[in-house]
Amino acid sequence: MVEKSLYSKHISTQFNAELEDVRQRVLAMGGLVEQQIIDATRSLMDGDGMLGETVRRNDYKINQQEVFIDEECSRILARRQPTASDLRLVYAVIKTITDLERIGDEAERIARMAADLASQERLRYGYNEIQHLSKHVSQMVHDVLDAFARMDIEAALAVAKEDVTVDREYEALMRQCITFMMEDPRQIRRVMDLIWVVRSLERIGDHAGNIAEYVIFFVKGKDVRHLSLEQMERHVRGEDVLPENGPSAGAQ
Amino acid sequence: MVEKSLYSKHISTQFNAELEDVRQRVLAMGGLVEQQIIDATRSLMDGDGMLGETVRRNDYKINQQEVFIDEECSRILARRQPTASDLRLVYAVIKTITDLERIGDEAERIARMAADLASQERLRYGYNEIQHLSKHVSQMVHDVLDAFARMDIEAALAVAKEDVTVDREYEALMRQCITFMMEDPRQIRRVMDLIWVVRSLERIGDHAGNIAEYVIFFVKGKDVRHLSLEQMERHVRGEDVLPENGPSAGAQ
Repeated sequence: MVEKSLYSKHISTQFNAELEDVRQRVLAMGGLVEQQIIDATRSLMDGDGMLGETVRRNDYKINQQEVFIDEECSRILARRQPTASDLRLVYAVIKTITDLERIGDEAERIARMAADLASQERLRYGYNEIQHLSKHVSQMVHDVLDAFARMDIEAALAVAKEDVTVDREYEALMRQCITFMMEDPRQIRRVMDLIWVVRSLERIGDHAGNIAEYVIFFVKGKDVRHLSLEQMERHVRGEDVLPENGPSAGAQ
Repeated sequence: MVEKSLYSKHISTQFNAELEDVRQRVLAMGGLVEQQIIDATRSLMDGDGMLGETVRRNDYKINQQEVFIDEECSRILARRQPTASDLRLVYAVIKTITDLERIGDEAERIARMAADLASQERLRYGYNEIQHLSKHVSQMVHDVLDAFARMDIEAALAVAKEDVTVDREYEALMRQCITFMMEDPRQIRRVMDLIWVVRSLERIGDHAGNIAEYVIFFVKGKDVRHLSLEQMERHVRGEDVLPENGPSAGAQ
């Protein structure tokens, strides 16, 4: 269900180019964020403190992109005075980059823990499960950016659903970490570092889920935050759409 | 340095009323969020699981307000096509309510831990320090809403500075919790509940700091996120303002 055409109806080619530019910048920012998660996790897995440091140093690039895109959105709002789906696109971008920036912060936190752990003896447990969880959430970030690029609400819905699985993996891993600490209290400090990594990964899943909601908002013109997954699904499938909420009504 | 007049220069009384309404709604939402932090902490202190449940049930009100205010902002953007400081106000509101909603989520998490802990034997430590930290961050939320209400950038700057103290208290409390766990591993599960509370309180401080930055952005027309506190302070004091950024440019 790809609805790219939604935001390219107006006549001004220049305006089209501006919207396309901001969209491309969000995708580029997202690509950087995704790479930061992957690198932060690799620095943890390989005990590579240098790579962890690089991730921490690179966070400013994500911050710069957020500020730049916000400025661009402000300019578009002031000069182009968008309405309907164009306005919804700008709105979705403003919300999306906040979550992307915070995913970047979580990647930085993971890198900090990785750098800390790299200087100590390696724990014999937890790493495989963390790698699995990290792959899962970075795939979610990848998929939600893909959904954003194609404005594909089915793909966005799939990401929102994945978050439930991530939460379950998180709970299981957290119980395991607590067991590790109880069995070997001398390792508590190091296990706490792992716990912060696990927590950050879980938060990344949440942020990806938020972005999925903005994609659905853009395409369907309805705010699906704080709905249950079932309600969200009915909405995406168009089973509960009242006429005044339809995309034909434009944004508002 | 109160600059309320900034957003009330235009001629349309109706438009003025709409902006004032959205501003009032943000303050009302903020008041509810503040109360949720206070109640969540009280439920922890008093071991009052019922109050914790009430906090969890009330979170939907905050979510509703977020959705409502976002819709109102969309309507204002589409119909009024604001520019300059009016646009910045709407932009600051859009960003602020995201952080307020996430503070609400943290309060809900605290309430969940409180409800969990209420059903178990009470730990003999940590509570006083947590109460202190909670008072500190709820004061920050109170102060930043006050800064938002009066668009007072000196007050906003003070909140941003407080966050540094909160981070220090957080670090100390976290070290203490780790010591508790090492000294008495049988308590690890319960101390972990306290750790999540401490973490949530620290995140509330971060969100209050974010809102402080939006207030400064609104008044000064410059994005101060990701600046150091010193740079932010120089900016608020007008010591690094280039002519084109100056308040004399109107909006900006």
